[in-house]
Amino acid sequence: MALPFNTEKIIYRRDLQPADRPHIYEIVISTDFFSKEEIDIAIELVDERLSKGSRSGYLFLFAEYAGQVIGYTCYGRIAGTVGSFDVYWIAVHRLFQGNGIGKSLLQKTEQLIMKEGGRRFYIETSSRDQYKNTRLFYLSFGFRQDAFMKDFYAPEDGKIVYVKNIP
Amino acid sequence: MALPFNTEKIIYRRDLQPADRPHIYEIVISTDFFSKEEIDIAIELVDERLSKGSRSGYLFLFAEYAGQVIGYTCYGRIAGTVGSFDVYWIAVHRLFQGNGIGKSLLQKTEQLIMKEGGRRFYIETSSRDQYKNTRLFYLSFGFRQDAFMKDFYAPEDGKIVYVKNIP
Repeated sequence: MALPFNTEKIIYRRDLQPADRPHIYEIVISTDFFSKEEIDIAIELVDERLSKGSRSGYLFLFAEYAGQVIGYTCYGRIAGTVGSFDVYWIAVHRLFQGNGIGKSLLQKTEQLIMKEGGRRFYIETSSRDQYKNTRLFYLSFGFRQDAFMKDFYAPEDGKIVYVKNIP
Repeated sequence: MALPFNTEKIIYRRDLQPADRPHIYEIVISTDFFSKEEIDIAIELVDERLSKGSRSGYLFLFAEYAGQVIGYTCYGRIAGTVGSFDVYWIAVHRLFQGNGIGKSLLQKTEQLIMKEGGRRFYIETSSRDQYKNTRLFYLSFGFRQDAFMKDFYAPEDGKIVYVKNIP
C-alpha cells in the first residue's frame, strides 16, 4: 500500500553522497524483487561511483523526500558505443510505490541522457511472471522490445531488452 | 600473412602476470580491429583482474609462444545469472592468425566454462562488414545468433549476440 504523501515535495538530485548508501540498500531490499547477488550488484555500482567518481561511468538520479532517498536510477553510456545508454537500475522504495515516482525518474533520466548526447537507451528485465508489471511499465513508457534471450538469467528465466530512441 | 611456426609449441595457461599487460596491448593493437576506446576496455579488464584478482569476475586464458602471450580470451560468469558466461574478449596477434589459435582458445575456454558449472556462453560482435569473418567463425564454432540489436554500437552498427549451449 502506498503511503499518503505530497509528491510535490519530492526533490530530484544527481549527486551521490556516502550517506545515500544505506538508503539505497534499504530501497532495494524493500522491493522484495532482488536476489542477494542483485543487491550486491546494486551496492557495487554505488561503491564504484563513490570511489571512482564520473570515471566509473555510472550516473545517478535520486528522488528524495524529507531528506531521504526514496527512489533512484543508475545509468550511463555503454562503453564502446556512440550514443547508446543503459539504465542499469531503477527502484522505488516499496512504501512510496504507486505514486508515479518511477515514471518521473525515468522521464528525467531520459532528459539527462539526451543532454549527454544519447540517441537511444536500453533497459532490461526478466521474462518471469514476477516482472510482468515491470515489462508493462517499460512498454507504456515508450520502450519497445529489442531482444529476448531465452534462459539468459537461468533456465526458464529469459532476458528481455527494451530500447527507446531519443528524438 | 601468418608466420611459419610450430603450433605444438604453444602453451596454454590461465594465470595473468603483470608482464602480460604490454603483450596484451600489443595483440589488441596488432589486429587493427579495435577503436581507442575498445583498446582501453581490453586493458581495463586486465587491470581489474590484476588489482582485484578473482573477485573481478574476469577469467583469462592465454596462448603463449616462446615466452610471450600471442592470443587470449577474457571471460566470466555473468553476474546475476545461473550458469551464463560471457566471452568478453578474444584476440590473436595478427602475425599469428590463420593457425587455428583462436579456435583452440575458444574450445579450451568452453571447457573451462563447463568446469565452472556454465550451461551456456555468449559472445558478441558488430554487424558491420568488417566483422563478417568474425561472425562466420562464431557460427562455425557452434554459436547461434540469439539477438540482433540494430544501431547498438552506432547508427548502422548493430550488435549481434551469439549463444552456445554447453552439453
